[in-house]
Amino acid sequence: MNDTQISAPPGLPQIITAARFDAPRYLVFRAFMEPDLLSQWLGPRRVTTTIEEYDPRDGGRYHYTHHDAEGNDYAFRGVFHGDPSLEGAVQTFEYEGAPGHVSLETLTLEDTGDGTLVRTVSVYQSVEDRDAMVEAGMETGVTEGMERLEMLLDKLKRESGGGAARAA
Amino acid sequence: MNDTQISAPPGLPQIITAARFDAPRYLVFRAFMEPDLLSQWLGPRRVTTTIEEYDPRDGGRYHYTHHDAEGNDYAFRGVFHGDPSLEGAVQTFEYEGAPGHVSLETLTLEDTGDGTLVRTVSVYQSVEDRDAMVEAGMETGVTEGMERLEMLLDKLKRESGGGAARAA
Repeated sequence: MNDTQISAPPGLPQIITAARFDAPRYLVFRAFMEPDLLSQWLGPRRVTTTIEEYDPRDGGRYHYTHHDAEGNDYAFRGVFHGDPSLEGAVQTFEYEGAPGHVSLETLTLEDTGDGTLVRTVSVYQSVEDRDAMVEAGMETGVTEGMERLEMLLDKLKRESGGGAARAA
Repeated sequence: MNDTQISAPPGLPQIITAARFDAPRYLVFRAFMEPDLLSQWLGPRRVTTTIEEYDPRDGGRYHYTHHDAEGNDYAFRGVFHGDPSLEGAVQTFEYEGAPGHVSLETLTLEDTGDGTLVRTVSVYQSVEDRDAMVEAGMETGVTEGMERLEMLLDKLKRESGGGAARAA
């Protein structure tokens, strides 16, 4: 279990998440940076994801859409600040259904020797924006996304013939 | 007087500023978006500014350096989220002297009929980052920058032969 922790402190415009994976950091990094992998785990279980643009470098843009079984589309976009590295990435984030509300997302990948600790810090332009994100069900999206990521990492480890002990 | 207001609420990772200018919005917008104008007012009075890169469009990058009389350089960089408009702009911000500490800056330009209200909301990855920015003297930089902006806008108004009543 990745045992996802989600923290949204009252009165603060932040959401902090942490999850631990029994997989080497380079593999977790790939799952975040390669669109073909990212589309397999991002978001809650009830959606499929199309990644229309994904350019993980300083100033590069991304755009993706979640599709649910009822035919609804939920599109998201942003830009990368700085070049991503094995240590993580910084990017902006905007849900196109609520244009003008932008957050800054910091991803940190920590090699713990026996696996990888994935942390995210999201900061919003206001506490109201943060609360709206919580009310929109981001917790389910993150928790289920992390579960799907874990399954994907297990599959990638099997395919590569290596185990979690493989050095990052 | 632009009467700059700066708010850094205790315990919140935010800095909010507001200043009022006796100038039409299109002129204020130009002063923020054109590097030749921006370099004339950005930052505290004791520095001069070189803008090495400034590309105000979705995913565009910027990089500028403040130089002081003692020969010190202070470099800053970031990317634009979305295309700037007369309504404002959203961009990331990082001081290269403290790499890895990134904030999200939202600029709002409001046409008040008799002038322009300029507001900025900066959100930081942590309250500690925000406090470090306050301790680094950002208040002086903002207040003096707004005073310099006011002088520049007065000059631009005189040059264009129009007054504050000119429609935005």
